[in-house]
Amino acid sequence: MKKTSLAIGVDIGGTNTKFGVVTKRGRILDEGAIKTSEYETVESFIEALHENLMPIIEKHQSRQEIKGIGIGAPNGNFYTGSIENAPNLHWKGIVPLTKLIEDKFKIPAVINNDANAAAIGEQTFGAGKGMQDFIMITLGTGVGSGIVVNGKILYGNHALAGELGHTIIRHNGRKHWSTGLRGTLESYCSATGIALTAKKMLKKEDAPESLLSQYTLKDIDSKAVYDCAMKGDELAKNVYAFTGKVLGEALANFTMFSSPDAIILFGGVTKAGDLLLKPTKESMESHLLDTFKNRVKLIFSELKEADAAILGASALVWEIKENL
Amino acid sequence: MKKTSLAIGVDIGGTNTKFGVVTKRGRILDEGAIKTSEYETVESFIEALHENLMPIIEKHQSRQEIKGIGIGAPNGNFYTGSIENAPNLHWKGIVPLTKLIEDKFKIPAVINNDANAAAIGEQTFGAGKGMQDFIMITLGTGVGSGIVVNGKILYGNHALAGELGHTIIRHNGRKHWSTGLRGTLESYCSATGIALTAKKMLKKEDAPESLLSQYTLKDIDSKAVYDCAMKGDELAKNVYAFTGKVLGEALANFTMFSSPDAIILFGGVTKAGDLLLKPTKESMESHLLDTFKNRVKLIFSELKEADAAILGASALVWEIKENL
Repeated sequence: MKKTSLAIGVDIGGTNTKFGVVTKRGRILDEGAIKTSEYETVESFIEALHENLMPIIEKHQSRQEIKGIGIGAPNGNFYTGSIENAPNLHWKGIVPLTKLIEDKFKIPAVINNDANAAAIGEQTFGAGKGMQDFIMITLGTGVGSGIVVNGKILYGNHALAGELGHTIIRHNGRKHWSTGLRGTLESYCSATGIALTAKKMLKKEDAPESLLSQYTLKDIDSKAVYDCAMKGDELAKNVYAFTGKVLGEALANFTMFSSPDAIILFGGVTKAGDLLLKPTKESMESHLLDTFKNRVKLIFSELKEADAAILGASALVWEIKENL
Repeated sequence: MKKTSLAIGVDIGGTNTKFGVVTKRGRILDEGAIKTSEYETVESFIEALHENLMPIIEKHQSRQEIKGIGIGAPNGNFYTGSIENAPNLHWKGIVPLTKLIEDKFKIPAVINNDANAAAIGEQTFGAGKGMQDFIMITLGTGVGSGIVVNGKILYGNHALAGELGHTIIRHNGRKHWSTGLRGTLESYCSATGIALTAKKMLKKEDAPESLLSQYTLKDIDSKAVYDCAMKGDELAKNVYAFTGKVLGEALANFTMFSSPDAIILFGGVTKAGDLLLKPTKESMESHLLDTFKNRVKLIFSELKEADAAILGASALVWEIKENL
C-alpha cells in the first residue's frame, strides 16, 4: 500500500513555538510546543526543537511519509530560507533557518513569514479555498498581511511584499512605538493600537460611567477593552467603532490596489465580532470607488486560532511541492 | 522568406484616437488619428477607424503579417473585451469593443485599460524591460496605474485591480470633483489636482510677487503652474513640492503592498522633472519601513509621450500571443 503523506508545521512566535504533524487535509495528528524565548542561540533552539519534535515524527514515519517541514516565523523570507532581523526574537541578523533545520532533521524545509503562512493556511484549509485573489489581514499584537494574487502569494522584490500593517492611513497621525512611522495601520488596528485608542478616549472624554474607568491606565489592554465591550460599555464599543473606521478605510485602499475576491480577517482582535466587522465594512464600502462597491467579501478566518498557525506552516510544504 | 510580424496599436482617448503599425521591436512604421469625440455612436467610430486604419494596414499586409489589434482605452476590460462605463466617452454602458473590431477588421483584437497598456508598453519597450515587479503611475489629467507582479499585469477580480489614483492618502481631505471620494491621490497629484493646489495656495498665501498672480484664477491650469515654475517662481515650485510630498507618501504605501523593483512615472505632470521627482523621492523614503529604504527605483518612463500610447496598445498583441 502506498504511504500517505504528512507535513510538519512549525510556528515560531516571539514567546512560543508550536509544532504539529498534519495531514494533507488539515487534520493535526499530534502536536507540541517549546518556549522560543528560552533559547538565546538559534542552535540551542534547533536542538530543543529536534528533541521535542523527533519523537512524534518517528511515531508517524513508519507508516506515513513525511514530505517536509513548513515553518512560519516573523520576518521569515521564502526566497532566502532565512529569518531576517526579526525584532521579537533573540537571534539577531540573518538566521539561515531552513538550512539549519534540514541539516539537523534531514527533511526538506521551507519557511515563510507568519502572515504569508496564515494566508496559505487559509487558502489550503479555510475561508480562502478556491479563491484566486484574497488578502489576509492578521490583527494581533501587530497587524500582518498575506496577499494572494492569481492563486499565489505575492512576494515582490526580495520577498518583502505584504507589509500592509505599516502603510499610512492617517497622514501625520499616531506615532508607531517601534517603527517611528506616523499614522500606520498597525498603530491603530493592532491589539496595542486598540489599547492606545481606549486610553486616548478615556483621557479625552472624561467618562466616569465607563467600565474602563475602573482600570488604572496602565492596566488597559485590548483584553480589558474587549471585556468591557462585551458587557455593553459604550466607550469600549466606541473604541471598536473607531478601529473599524480606520481599518475599513485601509481595506478600501487595498481593494483598489489588487481587487481581491475577499479580505479575510484573522487574529485575537477579531474576537470582537460584529462590534468590529460592522463599522469596518461600512467604512470600507464608503471609501470605495463605485465599481468596487459590494463586490469584495469581508469575512473572518474559518480556522480555529489555536490550530491556524500550525496548519498554515504545514501548508507551506504542499505549496512547495506544487511549485517544483 | 518568412513574413515578419507587425501589431496595430490603437489608443482611444476622450478626445483623440491614435493608431499605428508597430514592429515587434517597437518601431512605429505608420500612424494616424481620428477625433474620438466626433462619433456619437461606437458603430460610427468603428466605421471611421476602419476607413482611416485599413489603408495603412493594407500597405504593410502584403509583405508582413498583421498579428492583431491592441487597444488601450479608458475602462477597457482585458477579461471581457469591453469598454465598461467610461465617464469620458460618448458611448455609455458596456461596449463590446474587441468583438466589434474583430467583426469589422477580421483581425484578432485585445483591449486593456490605458494605464495597463502603458505598463505593458514600458515592460516591452521601455524602462520596465526585464523587470518582474514594477508599478506604473500615469500622471495626466487623472492618475492611472498599471501594476506588474511576477512579470504579469495584476488584474484581480473582474480585472479591476490597479485603481491607485482613487486610493485615499489624506483622510477626509480634498473632495474629488467626479468620484466624490475625499483625499484620493488623483485629487492632489493629477494635472487637475495641481491646478487646484496652486489656486488654494494663491488664495491662502496672498503672494502678489508670484507670477501666478498675473493669471485670473480660472486660467490657472497645470500648464500655467509648469510655465511659472520653469521661470523660477517660488509659489509654483512649492506646488510641485507639495504634490511630491503627497505622491511620495502614496508610493511608500504602494511599495509596502507589492515590493516592486521600480516605480515608473509617466505623463504630462512628469515634465516638471526634478521639481517633482526630488520631493517625491524624499517623501517616499521617509515614509517607508526601514527594510524598504533605498531599494525601490523611482524613475521616469523612457518612452516618448507622443508614441507611448500607440506602443503600449501594440504591445498588448504580443502579450496575448505569449499567453496563448
